Amino acid sequence: MEFRRTHYTSHVTPEMNGQTVKLAGWVHEIRDLGGIMFLVLRDREGMAQITLFKKTIDPEVLKTAKALSRESVVLVEGDVKAEAKAPGGYELVPIKIDRLNPVKSPLPMDTTGKVDAELDTRLDNRFMDVRRPRTQAVFHIRHHMLSAVREFLEQEGFIEINTPKVVATATEGGTALFPITYFDTEAFLNQSPQLFKQLMMSGGMDKVFEIGPIFRAEEHDTRRHLNEATSIDIEASFMDHEDVMVILENLVVYVYEKVAERAVPSLKTLGIEL
Amino acid sequence: MEFRRTHYTSHVTPEMNGQTVKLAGWVHEIRDLGGIMFLVLRDREGMAQITLFKKTIDPEVLKTAKALSRESVVLVEGDVKAEAKAPGGYELVPIKIDRLNPVKSPLPMDTTGKVDAELDTRLDNRFMDVRRPRTQAVFHIRHHMLSAVREFLEQEGFIEINTPKVVATATEGGTALFPITYFDTEAFLNQSPQLFKQLMMSGGMDKVFEIGPIFRAEEHDTRRHLNEATSIDIEASFMDHEDVMVILENLVVYVYEKVAERAVPSLKTLGIEL
Repeated sequence: MEFRRTHYTSHVTPEMNGQTVKLAGWVHEIRDLGGIMFLVLRDREGMAQITLFKKTIDPEVLKTAKALSRESVVLVEGDVKAEAKAPGGYELVPIKIDRLNPVKSPLPMDTTGKVDAELDTRLDNRFMDVRRPRTQAVFHIRHHMLSAVREFLEQEGFIEINTPKVVATATEGGTALFPITYFDTEAFLNQSPQLFKQLMMSGGMDKVFEIGPIFRAEEHDTRRHLNEATSIDIEASFMDHEDVMVILENLVVYVYEKVAERAVPSLKTLGIEL
Repeated sequence: MEFRRTHYTSHVTPEMNGQTVKLAGWVHEIRDLGGIMFLVLRDREGMAQITLFKKTIDPEVLKTAKALSRESVVLVEGDVKAEAKAPGGYELVPIKIDRLNPVKSPLPMDTTGKVDAELDTRLDNRFMDVRRPRTQAVFHIRHHMLSAVREFLEQEGFIEINTPKVVATATEGGTALFPITYFDTEAFLNQSPQLFKQLMMSGGMDKVFEIGPIFRAEEHDTRRHLNEATSIDIEASFMDHEDVMVILENLVVYVYEKVAERAVPSLKTLGIEL
């Protein structure tokens, strides 16, 4: 069975009117209005409306469409038709629909964002939660953010390193450590790459950074404190605190600018203006 | 005390003849030939020769230079003099030498690469080992490699994610896990981001990658097996094994090309041709 798309939903434009494309993704919504049926297909980049005119559609295609339930995975081959009212300014008149993966109903949670779910439900069904456009937007923005951080630091002459996460001693006071059994030895999960970054400084590496996991064994009752987090750490030699602050300030400005430029649809999904 | 360089050693060129620059770094070598004395200063980017003509040099500068021992940290302000025989095609005639950090002798190991050290000695004195040009070259190449991997995967539409390292169960058979005490619960260090990448696929993220630590609790007697390593993991939907192999092949070709372009001095240091 064919399962390769030719385009993401957001890469199809009204200017492609008349062209045949293949879209692959999830059935986000189904609306049957009698003479006409709409499927909304969702992929990582957005949504596309598939329009089935019952009078003119191939009966096989209609039959497949009718058997679909929300969140099934489909491949839709169809002709692009410019349509100002549809998402992205086009709809797709399907030539063929392949149901790649049917889903079981009822769904454990709603992915359209219309029905709110408790955090526990969302985390218990994370594979569904990730499908929500708002959750996907967070991952997209996060990706652009990390990518911009690296870009900036590279331009500033920083070298990326990866330091050990299993360590023999604490790197700083003030936070508790997770103990780990490292064969016959007691060891800990690192709470920060601090000592290793400093070691690289005495090693003459001059400017390094790491983006990696840190672990802190404190019981928190807030959502802002995590026991496992991703830290962005830089270290530099031949600088004082003012030099470092200039770098950090410029870093933040750079990352805001780049995310604002590159994550436009995700920021829109979240209703955020940078 | 001033400690900011104006240039790295490799950024000074013979064309800058007559210009005054400041270099900061480590005293790599000292040679006193009677009427003339050479200091070789090493920084992250290479070496520079500082030449002291004893007849004409400021006695204060000479005094500071004479008191230096290898691996001390210095800031040298001096005039660039084109000199074909010196590293980088120039030498520096010093106006001022600041000894930022003196070292204690004897040194625990040699950093010039002339005297080989056992691996144990190197690891016990990692801060010195990292100063060896060969070790630094490895970090530089590694940085360029990781940077090229990310660049390629971004171009191919992959999104970077960071998955949990503390996990409740094994992600695959065949490798042992490090147990960890997660408050009152038993947990493990992840051996691979596999399950989380797959979760992102069923979440519709389509193409993701992660570069992060993995942990495998096996006792090995080789240097090729590590209990803690950095893995480069990709996952993609709507593809078969052939599609994935094409991506991986192109990835390897791209990374080789970019490292060959961008890590020229480091490859030269290691005597490697790509």
